[in-house]
Amino acid sequence: MQSTMQDVPLTVTRLLRHGSTIHGGSTVTTWTGAAEPHVRTYAEVGERAAQLAHALREDLGVDSDQRVATLMWNNAEHLEAYFAVPCMGAVLHTLNLRLPAEQLAWIVNHAADRVVLVNGSLIPLLAPLLPHLSSIEHIVVSGPGDRTPLADAPVPVHEYEELLADKPTSYDWPELDERTAAAMCYTSGTTGDPKGVVYSHRSIYLHSMQVNMAQSMGLTDRDTSLVVVPQFHVNAWGLPHAVFMTGVNLLMPDRFLQPEPLAEMIESVRPTHAAAVPTIWQGLLGELTAKPRDISSLTQVTIGGSACPPSLMEAYDKLGVQVCHAWGMTETSPLGTVARPPAGVSEEEELGYRLTQGRFPASVEPRLTGPGGEILPWDGESAGELEVRGPWIAGAYYGGAAGEDLRPADKFSEDGWLKTGDVGTISPDGYLTLTDRAKDVIKSGGEWISSMELENVLMSHPDVAEAAVVAVPDDKWGERPLATVVLKEGASADFETLRAFLGEKIAKWQLPERWAIIPAVPKTSVGKFDKKVIRRQYADGDLDVEQVKPQQ
Amino acid sequence: MQSTMQDVPLTVTRLLRHGSTIHGGSTVTTWTGAAEPHVRTYAEVGERAAQLAHALREDLGVDSDQRVATLMWNNAEHLEAYFAVPCMGAVLHTLNLRLPAEQLAWIVNHAADRVVLVNGSLIPLLAPLLPHLSSIEHIVVSGPGDRTPLADAPVPVHEYEELLADKPTSYDWPELDERTAAAMCYTSGTTGDPKGVVYSHRSIYLHSMQVNMAQSMGLTDRDTSLVVVPQFHVNAWGLPHAVFMTGVNLLMPDRFLQPEPLAEMIESVRPTHAAAVPTIWQGLLGELTAKPRDISSLTQVTIGGSACPPSLMEAYDKLGVQVCHAWGMTETSPLGTVARPPAGVSEEEELGYRLTQGRFPASVEPRLTGPGGEILPWDGESAGELEVRGPWIAGAYYGGAAGEDLRPADKFSEDGWLKTGDVGTISPDGYLTLTDRAKDVIKSGGEWISSMELENVLMSHPDVAEAAVVAVPDDKWGERPLATVVLKEGASADFETLRAFLGEKIAKWQLPERWAIIPAVPKTSVGKFDKKVIRRQYADGDLDVEQVKPQQ
Repeated sequence: MQSTMQDVPLTVTRLLRHGSTIHGGSTVTTWTGAAEPHVRTYAEVGERAAQLAHALREDLGVDSDQRVATLMWNNAEHLEAYFAVPCMGAVLHTLNLRLPAEQLAWIVNHAADRVVLVNGSLIPLLAPLLPHLSSIEHIVVSGPGDRTPLADAPVPVHEYEELLADKPTSYDWPELDERTAAAMCYTSGTTGDPKGVVYSHRSIYLHSMQVNMAQSMGLTDRDTSLVVVPQFHVNAWGLPHAVFMTGVNLLMPDRFLQPEPLAEMIESVRPTHAAAVPTIWQGLLGELTAKPRDISSLTQVTIGGSACPPSLMEAYDKLGVQVCHAWGMTETSPLGTVARPPAGVSEEEELGYRLTQGRFPASVEPRLTGPGGEILPWDGESAGELEVRGPWIAGAYYGGAAGEDLRPADKFSEDGWLKTGDVGTISPDGYLTLTDRAKDVIKSGGEWISSMELENVLMSHPDVAEAAVVAVPDDKWGERPLATVVLKEGASADFETLRAFLGEKIAKWQLPERWAIIPAVPKTSVGKFDKKVIRRQYADGDLDVEQVKPQQ
Repeated sequence: MQSTMQDVPLTVTRLLRHGSTIHGGSTVTTWTGAAEPHVRTYAEVGERAAQLAHALREDLGVDSDQRVATLMWNNAEHLEAYFAVPCMGAVLHTLNLRLPAEQLAWIVNHAADRVVLVNGSLIPLLAPLLPHLSSIEHIVVSGPGDRTPLADAPVPVHEYEELLADKPTSYDWPELDERTAAAMCYTSGTTGDPKGVVYSHRSIYLHSMQVNMAQSMGLTDRDTSLVVVPQFHVNAWGLPHAVFMTGVNLLMPDRFLQPEPLAEMIESVRPTHAAAVPTIWQGLLGELTAKPRDISSLTQVTIGGSACPPSLMEAYDKLGVQVCHAWGMTETSPLGTVARPPAGVSEEEELGYRLTQGRFPASVEPRLTGPGGEILPWDGESAGELEVRGPWIAGAYYGGAAGEDLRPADKFSEDGWLKTGDVGTISPDGYLTLTDRAKDVIKSGGEWISSMELENVLMSHPDVAEAAVVAVPDDKWGERPLATVVLKEGASADFETLRAFLGEKIAKWQLPERWAIIPAVPKTSVGKFDKKVIRRQYADGDLDVEQVKPQQ
């Protein structure tokens, strides 16, 4: 027996058609730094997306599934590219402007981008890369910024508005299979080359539906969403696509990401929702404390990227802004979990739920695997590596022009699940709590010890400024924890004391036997603990390690 | 370039797994008429669905895509069948217990149902059919009701609870392709045989996501939904599937569909949402007026099936219950439109929007076709037949055991769209207003005249009790309207007067020239105007038709 349903593909084109007609009156407001922000309707975005597609095909020769890169802030023109490129059948490649120049060039070449759209203000970033880019044939510049660094560009440079000016405002969009590639992002691991994740029309469409579900962000055309999370960062968490499904209005900050203009645009454009990483919220809070503003329109903010400190969540609660945690990664499109508390819990329990990474929706199936690869129960206790499966979850990385897709064994299980590299627990009602990164977990005698848990307890000791715990090889247990400690100035706690302090909160078998005092914890360029440096120092014998005997 | 996304199918099985674990504590409450309703958790529903699947496969031999029919009210057991049958790979066929016995038997035979699950209270309906059922091999009875009419049944009769009792509470659900058939409903047109619509796992999954979107019903696990719309009526508008995605609690009325028990269960179980046709709401309003109850929990009701009279909507507004129109049909799964008003309109405009059939979501693409097949604009003025396209819209009818799928030209366009048979307008912002059924529209000189519009104006005349307008052949114009009028007792308005009255509101070229007084408008068994009887009476010369000259 066959289903008698129509076989209609789930495509970005459907989002474009729907958003630019039925929600044609909804708006994208781009902050310009001037008194009046720039406002464009979704109907206009639709027309200009058609013009851009004509320009890309007819003037710049973009064809089939070729890549069009963007080096852009969040603004209306970037939104136009979000629709024009996938809907014409090509692939949008958003470039992360925070990456080191070398990595950016590597990524553009690996994706074989033919065209790059760049904001005028980012020309200083692009120009020095040009000699290293092998596939770029055209540069298109949009928005204010000095063009002179592109005077000697090895390929033609076009003005965005001039390209669009004389083009028809409709386009005969092709019928696409829903599994066609639509967009790509590279994820920059701390080791190895960046890895490309290629989203399909299907995955973007389904992800958009999820974003709009009441249990996720649940916005409607009564909302305006301030999208601080960059469009080059996992499709700005899917918001630019999702809003075309429901007519949510957009407020785009362009390059004005400092606390002061953010506070100003909230007061003046009055968004109801905002999405950004914790650092932004921390900065904004400082700004609001220094110079109070009317942010009463804002009732809901989505925080992702890293966990939100409880104090920050409470501070926004007091301002009448409900902070909602979400967890995800480039490989998960990114919506993995959203921390909306369940029904029927006390106020205190509710806060506990809001501090988790969140609850899994039906389309993101999780499992936890233990040190031996065994599947662990969802008891809120058993910690394992989180693996996920679902229609908007990556099952491979892009292999580049020559190769096949990459499926490294540390990132994808044999049966096709994504290994997130995050270690945590899942409660019986499906809430995720992350406790560590898998690479930082200590695998001791078939059990896992969380380095982060040990660090947090250590750092709560009054004499400890910083502490980093890493796994070191051990003949008997495979791995054991090494505790490296930075003491506060003038403090004198000895290792026996610190070990006893740890023992008050941590199971005895997890307590480190190896201890070292260090002057400072080595950090990465973004300020995270760089544990591979400590592991190397230990291996090279560069640390002054003391053995502390377990108390009997 | 290939997408690197996982290829994970959208299946009812995923809904079952998710709902019975992550939302395992959510509940389905079945009204029993006794003081304590029956409560079952979604975790228990999941276990019992597994037991039912074991029973169907191992005891009753259900295999591959065989059909399992249900003749059941809304209750927990019916919900169990909703998941067990599709998840094991078979097809759930919900039987409409309001159909004439003859049609029911025809439908069971056409679908070749192998097993029928029946509520004890519906045995009197099933027993007389049995001699006419050619494919049924097993009967399974659930819930209270006299079993004796089945004593002479030609096939084995089982007790539902006995079948489940000793079965394992988990089942190794097969991995299914998302386009696998999952469930079917027959739609009973006024002419011809009933037509089978076969839903796929994919269509049910996507429809569930839409139901849960904030712009549709947007419920979460904080809600309890009173599902009055029968599970045999287009999957109870998709609610039983959708709730397993989000943990919305269910309140199922079983056979207690009268106003008094409905009022009682609202007061006692305190649902936040309810879904039913207007008749139910009309009856409940009468009950609440006669005997006031605390229905303060109820804030949102979804009304579909037919349009809600404005007076009824206003009456519920006063009770603090927001009525929301939705439009759909068996062929549309059924969610076609939902009448949530847009942002930024006045209170008066808002009411206007709420009285439309609703707004189209991104996944339901509409178009209007005029009398000559031309595509009409969305200007809120141009009336045409509504056609729709989308992943949960039927593209054919089930052809039965022997034949291919049926694609009658009056139901499906050449390019695969569903012709809804409804005539109406679409506003520029995507709201549908239905004005007529396509078969009742008068096609006059390449333009359409709405019979319903003429009738509504005529029936607002103080002398007119009822009026029906039908199309009759016309040499010059193709078709012209014939107005048949039932005068109130003692009234004496003549046709010239009525025609002039019409002319105050209706364009001159639409005014009927042919008029007849009739004693009563012929009605169908469900009380609708039976216009084909009038057309036949006219054709046979049985009406006393008077020609009224157009005034110059």
